[in-house]
Amino acid sequence: MTPEGRQKAYFRLIENKIDALVVIGGNGTFTGALKFDQEHDFPIVGLPGTIDNDLYGTDYTIGFDTAVNTVVDAADKIRDTATSHDRLFFIEVMGRDSGFIALRCGIAVGAEFVLVPETKTYIENMTRLLKHDIRKNKTSGIVIVAEGDDEGGATEVARKVKEQMPEVDTRVTILGHIQRGGSPSAYDRILASGLGAEAVYALLDGKRGVMVGYVDKQTQLTPFSEAISSKKELNTRLLELARILAL
Amino acid sequence: MTPEGRQKAYFRLIENKIDALVVIGGNGTFTGALKFDQEHDFPIVGLPGTIDNDLYGTDYTIGFDTAVNTVVDAADKIRDTATSHDRLFFIEVMGRDSGFIALRCGIAVGAEFVLVPETKTYIENMTRLLKHDIRKNKTSGIVIVAEGDDEGGATEVARKVKEQMPEVDTRVTILGHIQRGGSPSAYDRILASGLGAEAVYALLDGKRGVMVGYVDKQTQLTPFSEAISSKKELNTRLLELARILAL
Amino acid sequence: MTPEGRQKAYFRLIENKIDALVVIGGNGTFTGALKFDQEHDFPIVGLPGTIDNDLYGTDYTIGFDTAVNTVVDAADKIRDTATSHDRLFFIEVMGRDSGFIALRCGIAVGAEFVLVPETKTYIENMTRLLKHDIRKNKTSGIVIVAEGDDEGGATEVARKVKEQMPEVDTRVTILGHIQRGGSPSAYDRILASGLGAEAVYALLDGKRGVMVGYVDKQTQLTPFSEAISSKKELNTRLLELARILAL
Amino acid sequence: MTPEGRQKAYFRLIENKIDALVVIGGNGTFTGALKFDQEHDFPIVGLPGTIDNDLYGTDYTIGFDTAVNTVVDAADKIRDTATSHDRLFFIEVMGRDSGFIALRCGIAVGAEFVLVPETKTYIENMTRLLKHDIRKNKTSGIVIVAEGDDEGGATEVARKVKEQMPEVDTRVTILGHIQRGGSPSAYDRILASGLGAEAVYALLDGKRGVMVGYVDKQTQLTPFSEAISSKKELNTRLLELARILAL
Repeated sequence: MTPEGRQKAYFRLIENKIDALVVIGGNGTFTGALKFDQEHDFPIVGLPGTIDNDLYGTDYTIGFDTAVNTVVDAADKIRDTATSHDRLFFIEVMGRDSGFIALRCGIAVGAEFVLVPETKTYIENMTRLLKHDIRKNKTSGIVIVAEGDDEGGATEVARKVKEQMPEVDTRVTILGHIQRGGSPSAYDRILASGLGAEAVYALLDGKRGVMVGYVDKQTQLTPFSEAISSKKELNTRLLELARILAL
Repeated sequence: MTPEGRQKAYFRLIENKIDALVVIGGNGTFTGALKFDQEHDFPIVGLPGTIDNDLYGTDYTIGFDTAVNTVVDAADKIRDTATSHDRLFFIEVMGRDSGFIALRCGIAVGAEFVLVPETKTYIENMTRLLKHDIRKNKTSGIVIVAEGDDEGGATEVARKVKEQMPEVDTRVTILGHIQRGGSPSAYDRILASGLGAEAVYALLDGKRGVMVGYVDKQTQLTPFSEAISSKKELNTRLLELARILAL
Repeated sequence: MTPEGRQKAYFRLIENKIDALVVIGGNGTFTGALKFDQEHDFPIVGLPGTIDNDLYGTDYTIGFDTAVNTVVDAADKIRDTATSHDRLFFIEVMGRDSGFIALRCGIAVGAEFVLVPETKTYIENMTRLLKHDIRKNKTSGIVIVAEGDDEGGATEVARKVKEQMPEVDTRVTILGHIQRGGSPSAYDRILASGLGAEAVYALLDGKRGVMVGYVDKQTQLTPFSEAISSKKELNTRLLELARILAL
Repeated sequence: MTPEGRQKAYFRLIENKIDALVVIGGNGTFTGALKFDQEHDFPIVGLPGTIDNDLYGTDYTIGFDTAVNTVVDAADKIRDTATSHDRLFFIEVMGRDSGFIALRCGIAVGAEFVLVPETKTYIENMTRLLKHDIRKNKTSGIVIVAEGDDEGGATEVARKVKEQMPEVDTRVTILGHIQRGGSPSAYDRILASGLGAEAVYALLDGKRGVMVGYVDKQTQLTPFSEAISSKKELNTRLLELARILAL
């Protein structure tokens, strides 16, 4: 994190006859890698490793599929009881600036609502539709809330909904760091294995200062500076799909 | 829940030539069963079905082992990240009046602290020990909090700890109804199958108004009135074991 | 399966005012759908649903990711013991004509060998390399065998290896239909939800007699006749990756 | 395994100022521990660690609950497809000399038959009952076979059944070493933690040459010689329960 720290790290690498680095992480990692290369002229290639999937230059980040499966498992267990009582469940998932986990999880479990930072949340619209659901005898529901939603996390959103629907029993689950652990899914392992091999090929090929990703099954190299400054957009088709499935 | 409701239910049973009932649940279920038998002279036998394990007259309740495994899976995932950062994780588990889930989970995951409703919680003692851990270079920790702890749930406890240890990063996970769902563990299935058979034998044997449990592998029949009014004590050996393992 | 059966089915559809069908399956299902449409002029759209992933016209089939995760979980459990004993484990996975499951699983678990129907298996080459591993003090190994490999299933392959390496302890696991069940992975749910919506859009758009797939995130419609007669090739990059990882 | 090896081990222990050992395992481990103590006068206490649960002197062995849960998960996945086709599934589980895993798993999944080494298997009785099931329109079934059954493993039993019921589609799953791995269940962790603490108390208390177990929640010390020579009987109530549930 400091010039002195990087100096030390550089000497350690030279001592051990390491002549290139493959780093895994997100914007912070790539920013550090850029500085390191500027200061010490050292070849570094990056792999996209963040559970949020919000990195530009790759369809999927390593860790994302595992996190989504963890959330889906949790939501399935809640659905087991959600279908037998008159309740609204609010599940808070990770995503300070992005709704990738929330959105995919919402589709996978058929959530009644998915609240993401990328789109404005209207509590009144939501409660109106939830009241409509209840009149249709849909007796329970699941709302997935990305932690960075503009109306707040799950506790805050549940409180606001309860104000307008005092007759409903609201329950909150906050998954927290559960989403960061666990055995990696098959998809993540294969993605990481493939990108790891591509990173080595890129270095052998003289490439540096780039993040390796897959876009439409093709290997894509994105300069760190571009990976850091660009933002991957939420898939609007998935947003629409989430709405259709909730009807 | 009302005399009229029970009257209706009785007629329905008679119509369908059902001459005995096996009910599964906790104190509420058994209280209702008692009333039903008093009002309609109908043989009922009960099975202990609550995830909290706090029913008198049985070593284990149906659902408890599944809930504990769910909590342990979640805590394992948190431990994956807990060992790599300088943080305190507070995991809130079910247990308004009892710490069975918290205690067993705490032992299973080697939690630094387990806070249960049955024993007084001293925040200052806890933070003193946690600070000691940090000085010993133990860089992270997990605290299991039963929702009914006298110092509050995980959010409240984390806030109080943070006041006294502002340098520490605290994170809260609230599992909520995840603990009530999921595919039953092998132990719970075998327990339920065995008790179900015992309930039928008890009815055939003319027994009624009793809960069927296993104590030390022996079938035990406990009158509903006794099951409702008595309380199962937390195993003090387990409490001690949790403390030893956290050292 | 018979013209009479299809006639009956047609009447049932008409009676219930159903004017289009979405079917899910593989070659058999699509062949039946083609005949049904020819005989009764009825619009049908298909979804690719087979765990083998060998359908042309889509990157992934519904069920494939779940099956691969199931196999990986099983292989992980074997790896737990494989690393502590001097043994060769042969795990037979599904795939009569295709090695998609075997290959992806092999990469995900770092198998020493992956035997697939698409490439010729040379037992002697394999045993020579395995002996080399043993001399290098690699004390155990996992070989993934697709059931349709040209040298036979796992039991047969293990027998042939044992003939040439009698000093090694060989163990066989045959996963069988475990691979066809279980709760669907997040990936499969989202894939199925998306393709389901696309199938409805295709029907509304007047399309029929086609399978809906995703290729490079784009919706692709493949006529049933083409889906049936074409074959999806095993990804050669993945084959190479499996070999690199096993070194 | 040899006197020289044990001599070496003894010096290593002395060098490291270790003055007592806690070993975990089954008959082989305890036999070795006995010899070691006889040759070197060294205090050893044992914990029952075998997935088969066939050790005398404890209700449960460490690892058994995890293995049973693994088998139940696998059988559940097979049941998913078993209920949709006309098939008989034979699942081979561990147990060369004992049917504990097979029996508990059979009850947990409601298997049609459980074949264990402790009781004689009559293939003809079984096929007669299976034919009866089919006439009752029960369209599929699961048979759990302990590997040490007197009629052979699952492959052999399936072959014999197929001879008498050629019209039925038989499928075999052999779980093998999957049963020995995986993350331990909550029950196993708590059991191991408790017995581990008891082993230390026993050593502090001057005990040696004994296995520590729990019988009816009470700590029980069994001399190694007795643990080795005695056999735990299969619970006949469970055998009967398995039969009742299969009706």
